[in-house]
Amino acid sequence: MSEQAVTAQSQDFSRWYNEIVYRADLAAPSPVRGCVIIKPYGYEVWEAIKAGLDRRIKETGHQNAYFPLFIPESYIRREAEHVEGFSPELAVVTHAGGKELEEPLVVRPTSETVIGEAFSDWIQSYRDLPLLINQWANVVRWELRTRPFLRTAEFLWQEGHTAHATHDEAEAETIQMLDVYADCAINEAAIPVIRGEKSRLERFAGALRTYTIEGMMRDRRALQCGTSHNLGQNFAKAFDIRYLTESNVNEYCWTTSWGLTTRMVGAVVMTHGDDKGLRLPPKLAPYQVVIVPIYRKDDQRSAVMGTVERLRKLLDCAGVRVHVDNREGQSPGFKFNDWEMRGVPVRMEIGPKDVENNNAVLARRDVPGRQGKQFISQDGTLAAVETLLADIQQSLLEDARAFRDAHIMDVSSYDELRSVIDEGDWARAHWDGSDADELAVKDDTGATIRCFPFEQETEQGLCVLSGRKTERVALFAKAY
Amino acid sequence: MSEQAVTAQSQDFSRWYNEIVYRADLAAPSPVRGCVIIKPYGYEVWEAIKAGLDRRIKETGHQNAYFPLFIPESYIRREAEHVEGFSPELAVVTHAGGKELEEPLVVRPTSETVIGEAFSDWIQSYRDLPLLINQWANVVRWELRTRPFLRTAEFLWQEGHTAHATHDEAEAETIQMLDVYADCAINEAAIPVIRGEKSRLERFAGALRTYTIEGMMRDRRALQCGTSHNLGQNFAKAFDIRYLTESNVNEYCWTTSWGLTTRMVGAVVMTHGDDKGLRLPPKLAPYQVVIVPIYRKDDQRSAVMGTVERLRKLLDCAGVRVHVDNREGQSPGFKFNDWEMRGVPVRMEIGPKDVENNNAVLARRDVPGRQGKQFISQDGTLAAVETLLADIQQSLLEDARAFRDAHIMDVSSYDELRSVIDEGDWARAHWDGSDADELAVKDDTGATIRCFPFEQETEQGLCVLSGRKTERVALFAKAY
Repeated sequence: MSEQAVTAQSQDFSRWYNEIVYRADLAAPSPVRGCVIIKPYGYEVWEAIKAGLDRRIKETGHQNAYFPLFIPESYIRREAEHVEGFSPELAVVTHAGGKELEEPLVVRPTSETVIGEAFSDWIQSYRDLPLLINQWANVVRWELRTRPFLRTAEFLWQEGHTAHATHDEAEAETIQMLDVYADCAINEAAIPVIRGEKSRLERFAGALRTYTIEGMMRDRRALQCGTSHNLGQNFAKAFDIRYLTESNVNEYCWTTSWGLTTRMVGAVVMTHGDDKGLRLPPKLAPYQVVIVPIYRKDDQRSAVMGTVERLRKLLDCAGVRVHVDNREGQSPGFKFNDWEMRGVPVRMEIGPKDVENNNAVLARRDVPGRQGKQFISQDGTLAAVETLLADIQQSLLEDARAFRDAHIMDVSSYDELRSVIDEGDWARAHWDGSDADELAVKDDTGATIRCFPFEQETEQGLCVLSGRKTERVALFAKAY
Repeated sequence: MSEQAVTAQSQDFSRWYNEIVYRADLAAPSPVRGCVIIKPYGYEVWEAIKAGLDRRIKETGHQNAYFPLFIPESYIRREAEHVEGFSPELAVVTHAGGKELEEPLVVRPTSETVIGEAFSDWIQSYRDLPLLINQWANVVRWELRTRPFLRTAEFLWQEGHTAHATHDEAEAETIQMLDVYADCAINEAAIPVIRGEKSRLERFAGALRTYTIEGMMRDRRALQCGTSHNLGQNFAKAFDIRYLTESNVNEYCWTTSWGLTTRMVGAVVMTHGDDKGLRLPPKLAPYQVVIVPIYRKDDQRSAVMGTVERLRKLLDCAGVRVHVDNREGQSPGFKFNDWEMRGVPVRMEIGPKDVENNNAVLARRDVPGRQGKQFISQDGTLAAVETLLADIQQSLLEDARAFRDAHIMDVSSYDELRSVIDEGDWARAHWDGSDADELAVKDDTGATIRCFPFEQETEQGLCVLSGRKTERVALFAKAY
């Protein structure tokens, strides 16, 4: 499967990405336009992301529920900006049970509308607030250009939907969930995302404010990894979500929504991958350790396999996700390359000499060649593996952070901005331009405002376009 | 919410069911025809079922993956019985992205076709077999009559799909997964299901053989709780799923599929519920223990709440799902009734006297009144709760088994069969009738063959209809 070398990242990043996704068996093409099949190796990465995020969502007091896949077409129309934002992407069921439907049903592109309608039933008084709901589901957006994980017609995600008594509580929730996303991206996926606010042009259709976590991929393009929206009272007004206050006044609620998708699997590929293929953070890797048994003669086989099986059990019982590559007819060299391409964090080699000397070889995926190899005593296997996995998780994060920081340039003029973007880097600039200015920059350079980052040196500066004084700093980059 | 008494089961079981589902907050009506919203309290029951089943599916060597929601209409047509079975129930997307589609897309009613197409790509040789895949997903079947959880236009399920080299391996897989379902139903949901084979009339559209687990609900109707299908080579031929044998011969694979749905939540309600409402098996209960603090005066409050919080933490840390009902303005009596209706296995009461004497009261949901109450020392809280939860889990199962066994009658003539069915019980009868005979019994009595059970006294007997000698025994019952 992996005998031919992978295209180098520097040669053609986009081709590298597609090759890796399919050859590493994360996904397979599907017969349905714009959809992929998520294969077990890719789905397990998603399951690990999901487990880490679901735990955090529950710890912050949210409960999971499930709402219908189909949304009456009229619902989508109720919030003006929302319908405008999503109409071009809708898939519509017109026939069911052999008949034409009286009202077409939209396959949910997101569930603010159907959940808004439910909330208006469920919420009566301030006692019902806050209402904190999350849903794990599939959604459909009929995108024109699709790429596995990054943008597909159907994708998997979670969508949180909450209702609150005040603007400030809704705002605090919106920020809290952005922080949950950032924590999950950084500490599970080892992606050093930047938290910030979206510009008005990049806001969710119907939101007051949209916040985002943005990651820098290895080709230096930005990838939006998750968003959190303060919806203000827009959906509450469209769906009549009201509550009685303690002093018996009828008020509209303030709502939020926030989503993170299978796109994260693509983010992992593009943040950590190298010319040899995937590099999976140990916390998300379906296999954290692959053991490759090495022997030439049949009489070596049983001794080697005995040791291999003992070590496999030892790791497995300790909760390490371990796999033995006992494929017959494939050389150890082939197996090394294959697991390197598939991004397994640690390879363990066991040969006849290792059996004799009570040793094992550990090779870490993130450090190539001899430098990444260590010889250990079998007696210390578990400790050595656990230390190594923690170290790789940390290294991948630091590596990505160093890469990111090396490619964000502070600019103080529009010419500088243009040349930084031309180079493929990100430009950090003081900005107080209008929507039209932002579009003009995009037309001119191909870059968009990824976000106004939360963390900035708050000094005043001059807007790179207008020259006006401003405290606001924007990150410009080309994006997926 | 629960101030009005629930309709008695004996008065109107169907009404009782609907009331409980909504009042216990398992589900809420949705604006989409035939769909419900699964609310957190119901979704958590499903999450617990899912966790227990997912673990068993992985332990038996299967891997999760995800396939597209949409299936090209032409795929459904490729297997003759399959298209006939599912055509009347399909929901069809005809428009997407603002245009009419060239080929309509069916919203998956089940995924044999799209997964079959993928398998034909993925399988080359005997080395790729067996291929053992599972998917957790939503599916849509446009049913005319719907009821929450039992039959809805959209539902959640897992669908396993496997490919094998031989008929016998496929058959062994089919039976293995039926056993996994039975184990899960019995040991997680405390539903004493009966394993057996479906009659030809009740087979899955396109299967060689269909196996089922059947449960008896409290109204003595049967509910099919999960099915496992040996698909023979039907789908392999329709989708060209072939492999090269060790001796280099091209052969069709043998495939299986098996599914279990959110219907299980309905099965839990109808197997264990009583006139007061739900009775949830501890392994599936969102809250295993609810603590109701009892106090009259404000100065009692802080002492009681201190003890309550200490015991809550103690249970929580030990992994018990515990909830404190600290609603203000509701009496303890109201709270007792509410949690009884919602089926929480154990209620703990803490009052000022209990604080003084270092005591607590435990009341078990499955034993009404004084008999179900015990006074314990707070020092032994965890042990007492854990013992009680295990005991309730076991009791619910035994209770349901005794009920089931009391309502299955051996019959040796057709008149007997008819009168047993008229009484509302199940009839166990020797049977070698034709499809037409089976349909005639259905027309006459309303009962169908639920299954030919695996466990039977294998003695020969006479078919209740034809009088011919046969070894086969069938279970007849009215069903959902």
